[in-house]
Amino acid sequence: MAMQALQWQDETLHVLDQTLLPNEVRFIELHTLADVWEAIKALRVRGAPLIGITAGYGILVGLHEKNPGDAAGVLETVQESCAYLATSRPTAVNLFWALDRMKKVAETHAPSMTHAELMSRLETEANAIYAEEIASCRAIGEYGAPLVPEGGGVLTHCNAGGLATGEYGTALAPMFRAWELGRRFHVFADETRPLLQGARLTAWELSQAGIPVTLLCDNTAAQVMREGRVQLVIVGADRIAANGDTANKIGTYSVAVLAHAHQIPFYVAAPFSTFDLSLEHGRHIPIELRDPKEVTEGFGKRTAPEGIDVYSPAFDVTPADYIAGIITERGILRPPFEKSIAQHTTMVARDV
Amino acid sequence: MAMQALQWQDETLHVLDQTLLPNEVRFIELHTLADVWEAIKALRVRGAPLIGITAGYGILVGLHEKNPGDAAGVLETVQESCAYLATSRPTAVNLFWALDRMKKVAETHAPSMTHAELMSRLETEANAIYAEEIASCRAIGEYGAPLVPEGGGVLTHCNAGGLATGEYGTALAPMFRAWELGRRFHVFADETRPLLQGARLTAWELSQAGIPVTLLCDNTAAQVMREGRVQLVIVGADRIAANGDTANKIGTYSVAVLAHAHQIPFYVAAPFSTFDLSLEHGRHIPIELRDPKEVTEGFGKRTAPEGIDVYSPAFDVTPADYIAGIITERGILRPPFEKSIAQHTTMVARDV
Repeated sequence: MAMQALQWQDETLHVLDQTLLPNEVRFIELHTLADVWEAIKALRVRGAPLIGITAGYGILVGLHEKNPGDAAGVLETVQESCAYLATSRPTAVNLFWALDRMKKVAETHAPSMTHAELMSRLETEANAIYAEEIASCRAIGEYGAPLVPEGGGVLTHCNAGGLATGEYGTALAPMFRAWELGRRFHVFADETRPLLQGARLTAWELSQAGIPVTLLCDNTAAQVMREGRVQLVIVGADRIAANGDTANKIGTYSVAVLAHAHQIPFYVAAPFSTFDLSLEHGRHIPIELRDPKEVTEGFGKRTAPEGIDVYSPAFDVTPADYIAGIITERGILRPPFEKSIAQHTTMVARDV
Repeated sequence: MAMQALQWQDETLHVLDQTLLPNEVRFIELHTLADVWEAIKALRVRGAPLIGITAGYGILVGLHEKNPGDAAGVLETVQESCAYLATSRPTAVNLFWALDRMKKVAETHAPSMTHAELMSRLETEANAIYAEEIASCRAIGEYGAPLVPEGGGVLTHCNAGGLATGEYGTALAPMFRAWELGRRFHVFADETRPLLQGARLTAWELSQAGIPVTLLCDNTAAQVMREGRVQLVIVGADRIAANGDTANKIGTYSVAVLAHAHQIPFYVAAPFSTFDLSLEHGRHIPIELRDPKEVTEGFGKRTAPEGIDVYSPAFDVTPADYIAGIITERGILRPPFEKSIAQHTTMVARDV
């Protein structure tokens, strides 16, 4: 089940170009900071946790590109690189969280470390971000697996699998883990317009793992729910506010409302790196608008009139009221989320 | 605003090939019954009323192809042609309704008319079906126009415009008419996967008429509703049961549930030819399953893994409970629909 969407090897960042899936499995090398920025922007690497992981290694890419001569230069380069990469995508908070971690390490140690020590310490931090996200996904799988209904159906939207993180993923982690434990069930994957991450990525990942999956157009989810074939919905998240309001791929809110109408429990799966406790409500989450061409000519062929107005937000925000629980690496949080999120946010003084 | 998706001229049936829109406006000639069957099956002609109109003329195409020598041969050919065309698509009841009209004319008059008289009478019947559907659409426009909110937003799904009928269409008729009367508003068109009738046809028709329209991925409708930008939903119908349950393009049920959750009135617009009073409930309506390839490689490019399981019903059924009213050529029917539908179904003994 292990998916390796990213590898840091011989001081080079290799990422799976997810825009080419499922037709082609091709890794590309990101040699410059601009390469990293473009890969995030164009969704070659995507999924909130993986964006964070990529940002961590992206700082290393920037350092190898600029090659500053001393620790002070390293700090300056890290600061500049962080500011630059932060402009790639606005919604997934993991991006900013990972950049902050790298910046803090540089700021803390630049005054006392040699150039070589600081470079090594930064590489350790990027590796730690990666390793921690993988561990979080495994824990999400453990906590979430018991929710998966034996002999039932699970619906998911977009892709929050191994391709979005490392290994298990977030929303798919409970499914992968339940399957390993011998539970049998069926997954319905929304294709997820406009970029079809559900069709291209989720359906592919689940098939590779041998888990039965049926692909649906987004507008068919309600019908499948009405037919009684779905007992659980799990989706990922790009940013979760302190009250539990959750930004995720456009269409998630729609699925949440439909699940509610059909009395199907709706869960979010995400590591704590996806929480943004500086935001009281989801309505403060910035929402990226995508290029209309992704809708009107997303498949290399124009499928709408020239010049037509298009509204294509990349994400929507599902109000906490629709969420039965948030599956995290520290357990399943339950409403009221203001309380459960605050309780689980242990303020560990980290050794940066 | 007049759209002419079909023309019967010099004993030849010309139809606009709607699969090529909006990139190309091309009329094709249907010379054989097999051509007519294929055009309906492949959605070159589509939309419940237009399928009925095409079926009426399709019988004439069959007669010109087979060229029977006497009135008895005409009757036999009509009967065979009806049985054949009935297999093209199972859901839109207008198909069966129009074929029944043609068959009844042949059965009634074959014993007493000459060959020439019967051929002429059948052509008159096909023309009458067309003319009546156009008149019905105009009446739907008149009755529905007052519902359109001045300065507000209207959401529609799939295409039930002039391309689906003649001229005004059904769901779009109230919008076209309200616009003519000087009312100003904005339309949100769901793109409507898998075949993108909303993007290719509705957005195109409304643009041509100068009505402001914004194209949405189907999964974005809920978000636009949540933003308070939609005050009315109108959709078409492929078959309406005696209790008001309505079969329409897949995704319509989803829109109905979402509209309900956002307290937005949800209307169906359809002529009486779309009612099937032989069905007590919507759950008896046969639902066509489409080819998975329309989902997995609908844009000329494979966008899902090879061999993936796909569930692609062409339609879903919206329970009457979600419907605020059904806009017909005889006025707006209100719940309880069992009663209002029965009241408006005047059993006129037609002179066939």
